[in-house]
Amino acid sequence: MNTVRLASIIEHPKVQNSIIGLIALNSVTIGLETSPAIMSAWGTWLLTIDAVILGVFVVETVIKLAVYRGSYFRSGWNVFDFIIIAIALLPASGALSVLRALRIFRSLRLIKAVPRLRFIVETLLHSLPSLTWIFVLLSLVFYVFAVVGTKMFGADHPEWFGDLGASMFTLFQIMTLEGWADIARTVQATTPLSIVYFLTFILMASYTTLNIFIAIVVNTMSEMQQRENRQQLDAIGSLIADERTDLHRDLRLLKEQIQRMEEKLSQPR
Amino acid sequence: MNTVRLASIIEHPKVQNSIIGLIALNSVTIGLETSPAIMSAWGTWLLTIDAVILGVFVVETVIKLAVYRGSYFRSGWNVFDFIIIAIALLPASGALSVLRALRIFRSLRLIKAVPRLRFIVETLLHSLPSLTWIFVLLSLVFYVFAVVGTKMFGADHPEWFGDLGASMFTLFQIMTLEGWADIARTVQATTPLSIVYFLTFILMASYTTLNIFIAIVVNTMSEMQQRENRQQLDAIGSLIADERTDLHRDLRLLKEQIQRMEEKLSQPR
Amino acid sequence: MNTVRLASIIEHPKVQNSIIGLIALNSVTIGLETSPAIMSAWGTWLLTIDAVILGVFVVETVIKLAVYRGSYFRSGWNVFDFIIIAIALLPASGALSVLRALRIFRSLRLIKAVPRLRFIVETLLHSLPSLTWIFVLLSLVFYVFAVVGTKMFGADHPEWFGDLGASMFTLFQIMTLEGWADIARTVQATTPLSIVYFLTFILMASYTTLNIFIAIVVNTMSEMQQRENRQQLDAIGSLIADERTDLHRDLRLLKEQIQRMEEKLSQPR
Amino acid sequence: MNTVRLASIIEHPKVQNSIIGLIALNSVTIGLETSPAIMSAWGTWLLTIDAVILGVFVVETVIKLAVYRGSYFRSGWNVFDFIIIAIALLPASGALSVLRALRIFRSLRLIKAVPRLRFIVETLLHSLPSLTWIFVLLSLVFYVFAVVGTKMFGADHPEWFGDLGASMFTLFQIMTLEGWADIARTVQATTPLSIVYFLTFILMASYTTLNIFIAIVVNTMSEMQQRENRQQLDAIGSLIADERTDLHRDLRLLKEQIQRMEEKLSQPR
Repeated sequence: MNTVRLASIIEHPKVQNSIIGLIALNSVTIGLETSPAIMSAWGTWLLTIDAVILGVFVVETVIKLAVYRGSYFRSGWNVFDFIIIAIALLPASGALSVLRALRIFRSLRLIKAVPRLRFIVETLLHSLPSLTWIFVLLSLVFYVFAVVGTKMFGADHPEWFGDLGASMFTLFQIMTLEGWADIARTVQATTPLSIVYFLTFILMASYTTLNIFIAIVVNTMSEMQQRENRQQLDAIGSLIADERTDLHRDLRLLKEQIQRMEEKLSQPR
Repeated sequence: MNTVRLASIIEHPKVQNSIIGLIALNSVTIGLETSPAIMSAWGTWLLTIDAVILGVFVVETVIKLAVYRGSYFRSGWNVFDFIIIAIALLPASGALSVLRALRIFRSLRLIKAVPRLRFIVETLLHSLPSLTWIFVLLSLVFYVFAVVGTKMFGADHPEWFGDLGASMFTLFQIMTLEGWADIARTVQATTPLSIVYFLTFILMASYTTLNIFIAIVVNTMSEMQQRENRQQLDAIGSLIADERTDLHRDLRLLKEQIQRMEEKLSQPR
Repeated sequence: MNTVRLASIIEHPKVQNSIIGLIALNSVTIGLETSPAIMSAWGTWLLTIDAVILGVFVVETVIKLAVYRGSYFRSGWNVFDFIIIAIALLPASGALSVLRALRIFRSLRLIKAVPRLRFIVETLLHSLPSLTWIFVLLSLVFYVFAVVGTKMFGADHPEWFGDLGASMFTLFQIMTLEGWADIARTVQATTPLSIVYFLTFILMASYTTLNIFIAIVVNTMSEMQQRENRQQLDAIGSLIADERTDLHRDLRLLKEQIQRMEEKLSQPR
Repeated sequence: MNTVRLASIIEHPKVQNSIIGLIALNSVTIGLETSPAIMSAWGTWLLTIDAVILGVFVVETVIKLAVYRGSYFRSGWNVFDFIIIAIALLPASGALSVLRALRIFRSLRLIKAVPRLRFIVETLLHSLPSLTWIFVLLSLVFYVFAVVGTKMFGADHPEWFGDLGASMFTLFQIMTLEGWADIARTVQATTPLSIVYFLTFILMASYTTLNIFIAIVVNTMSEMQQRENRQQLDAIGSLIADERTDLHRDLRLLKEQIQRMEEKLSQPR
C-alpha cells in the first residue's frame, strides 16, 4: 500500500471523527478507573478498552510517521501528540508509577482533533510571546524579594521563608492575596519593619499583573481595531472612487462637447 | 368571550403593572415567611395571600395559553414563566419539600415583566454562546486535572481528592484562589512534586478565565465599534455626496454654457 | 455689609485656600485624638483647635447661606457640606456618642474644596446611574438566594443562614469569594445538594459583577471614542472642504474663460 | 587617558554585556548565599566573587562619574544605579545589618541594563502620574475610615483597630478581601452597626480600585487609538489628494482645449 493511499485514509473525516470518539471514550474510561468500586467490578474491561484504544493511537501515529516522515515533527501539534503517545508506552511501574496518572493527558489530544478547541488554544498561546519580558521582570522581582525574605525572615519563619523555594512559594501565595494578612501579621510580630516588605511586594506584584492583563486586552483590541479600520478605509476608498468615476464621466462628456465645437470651428465655412 | 378580547385584556398595561405589583408583593410575603416570629403571628395571612396570588398567576397563564396556544411556548420567557408556575403547583411535601423553598423563584418573573431587567438579562445571555467552546476547554482542563489529582492525592487526602467530584470541587475552589495555599502546603507534605500540579493549574485556569473575560470585553467593544464606524462612514458618505452634488451642478452649468455656444456656432450667420 | 461684598470675600482664592488648610489641619487633629497618649498630653489643645475650626466652618456656612439663600441647596456639594457641618453641631453624648466618631467626615470636605478630587468623584458618580438596573438585578438575585438559603440551611447553620439578613451577609461574603469553600463544605455535610446552590450563586454573581465592570469600561471607552471619531470626522470634513474649494476655483476659472469665448462669439465681426 | 576614550570604552557593547553578565552572576551568588549548606561549603568563594564584582561596579560608576560629571545624575536610571552601589558600600554591621539583605537589589540593575526590561518599567511608571489624584482620594477614604474604625472598634479589637496604623493595615487587608468576613463578623458581635462600616468601605474601595484600573486601560487604549486614527486620517488624506490631482489634470486639459479654441476664434479668419 503506498503512502498516498495511507494519507487519504488516515486524514479521511470518518477516520478523524472515529479517533475523536476514541479519545473521548478513553477519557471516560480513565476517569472511571479512579473509582475503586467501579474498578473492582469492571476493572478488566476498562483496562482492556484502554489497551485497545492505546493500540489504535499507536497505529495511527506509526502510519502518520510513515506517511509524513520528517515533516511530521514540523507541526507543534504533532510533537504534542507524539509525546502523549510516547508517555503512554513507557513502563509505568516503580518510580515511574506517577506516569500512569498522566495517561489522562491523552484527553488533551481532543484539543488538536477538534478545530474550535485548537483555534482557542492557538489564540491563547498567540498572546503569550508578547508577555515574555513582563514575565522576566516579574521573575526578577520575585527573585529579589525571595532573597530578601529568606535572609530577613528565614530564621524566624522557616515554614514560609526557610529557603529560596519556600520564599518564592510564599510570595506567589501573597500575590494571589490568599492568606497574606496572616503571614504579614505573624512576621510583623518578629520583624516590625516587614510591613514595608509586604506592602511593597503586593503593590508591585498587583500592578505588574494588572499590566500583564492590560497588555493582553490592548493587544487584542488593537488587532481587532486595525482590521476594522482597514475595512472602514476600504469603504471610504470606494466612496471616493465612485465620486471620481462620476466626475470623470462628466468631464469626459464636457471634453467631447468642446471637441465637437473645436471641430466645427476648424471646418471651413 | 373571544381570544382577541382576552388578549387585549391580558396585555393591557394596567393588567401588566398589576401583575408586576403582585410578583413584588409575593416576593415580600415569601421573604417574611422565613421568619418564625412573623410566621407565628401572621402566618395564616401570609399563606392566604400567597395562595391567592398563585391563583392569579395560574389564571393569567391559563388565559395566555388559551390566547396564544402553541405559539406561547415559542418565547423562551414564556417557557420560563410556565416552569415557575408549574413548580409552584407541585405538591410540596415529603421528599419534594425542597420545592417549597423554590417558590421564591417566582420573584424572577419580575425579570420578564420589567423591560429594563429583561434587556440586561438578554444582554448577559447574549454573550454566553461565544463562550461555549472556551467553557468546553476549561471543562477538559478540569477533568484532566481532576483525574490526575484523584489518582495521585486521593489516597492521602480523601476530603479534597477522594473521587472525581471532590477533586473537581477542590479545583474550582483553587481556581477562585480561596484557601488554595493551605491545600497546596498540606498536599506538598505528602507529595512534594504536587507543587507543579497546583502552580500549573492555577496559571492555566487564571489565564483561561482571564481570556473568557477578555473575549466578552472585546466582543462587546467590537460590536459597539462597528456601530460607531458605520455611523462615521455614513457621515463621511454624506460629506462626499454633498461635494459630488455641488460639483455636478457646477459641471452642468458649464455644460449648458458650452451648449449655448455650440448652438450659436451652428446658427447660420 | 451687602451680600455681593460678602460673596466676593467668601469666594476669594485666599479664603478658599485657608479653608482647605483648616480642613487638612482639622483632619490631622481629629486623627491625633485617636491616640490616648497624645490626648492625655495635648488633649485640651486639640479640642480647642477643633472647636475653633468648627466655629470657622459654621461662620463660613452661615455666610454662604446668607449670600446664596435658596440657591445654596441646589448644588449637591453644598448639601453635602451642610450635612457634615450639621452633624458636627449635634450634641454628641449618650446614644449619639457615635456621632463624635463621624466628625472626621469633615475631612471629606476636602473633596469639594480641591477641584481635582471633585472632578474624580464626579466622574466616579457619573457612571453610577448606568449601573442602577444591573444593581436591581443583582439585588433580586441576592434576595431570591437569601430566601432559599434561609429556608434550606437556616435550621442547620443559623450563624450563616439564620435569617434573611444573615443570609444576605453570607452571600455577599461568598460573592467576594472570601472563605466560601469552608461554608460550602460545611453546609454540604448536612445538605449534599447545597453544592448546586453555591456553584450557581458564585457563577451568577461573578458573571453579573463582571458585566457591571464591563459596562463601565465600555461606557467610558464609548464616550472617549465618540469624541475621537467626531474629531476625525472634522478633520476629514476639512480635507474634503479643501478639495471642494479647490475644484470650485478651477471650475470658476473655466467658466469665466468660456464666458469670454461666448462674448467674443456674440460680438459682431 | 581622556574622558572621550573612557566613554567609548564604558559604553562599548562588549563592556555593557559583560556588566549584564556580572549582574546576573552576582544575583546568583547572592541567592546561593541564602543557603547555609552552600555557605559552609563555598562561602569564601561566594563572598570573594561578590567583593570582586562589587569592585567592578564601583569602578564602572567612578568612570561614568568622571566621564559625565554633573549630567550623570540627570538620568533617573543613573541615580537608581548610584544609590544601589552606594548602599552596597555602607558598613553592614550592627543596626545596619539589614542592609546586607538589600545587596540583592543590585539585581535590579538588570532592568536598566536590558533595554526591553527598561522599556516595560518605563511604560509601567508612565501611567502612574495619571493615577496620583485617585490615590490621594483613596488615601483620604482610608484615613477617614481608619479614624472612625479606631474610635469605634479600637477599644474592643485592639489587634485590628488599636491605633491609626493598625486600622490602616486592617483596611488594606479588607480592601484585598482577604479574611474580611472573619473580622466583620467578630466586630459585629460587639458593635452590630459595624456592618454598615464594612460594607460601605468594601464597596467604596472596590469601586475606586476598579476605576484606577479602568483609568489605566482607557488611557492606554486612548493613546493607541489616537495613533491608529492619525494613520487612518493620513490614508484618507492621500486618497483625497489622489482624486484632487486627477481632477486637476482633467480640468487643466479642458482648460488648454478651451484656450486653443479661444485662440482659434481670435485668429482673423
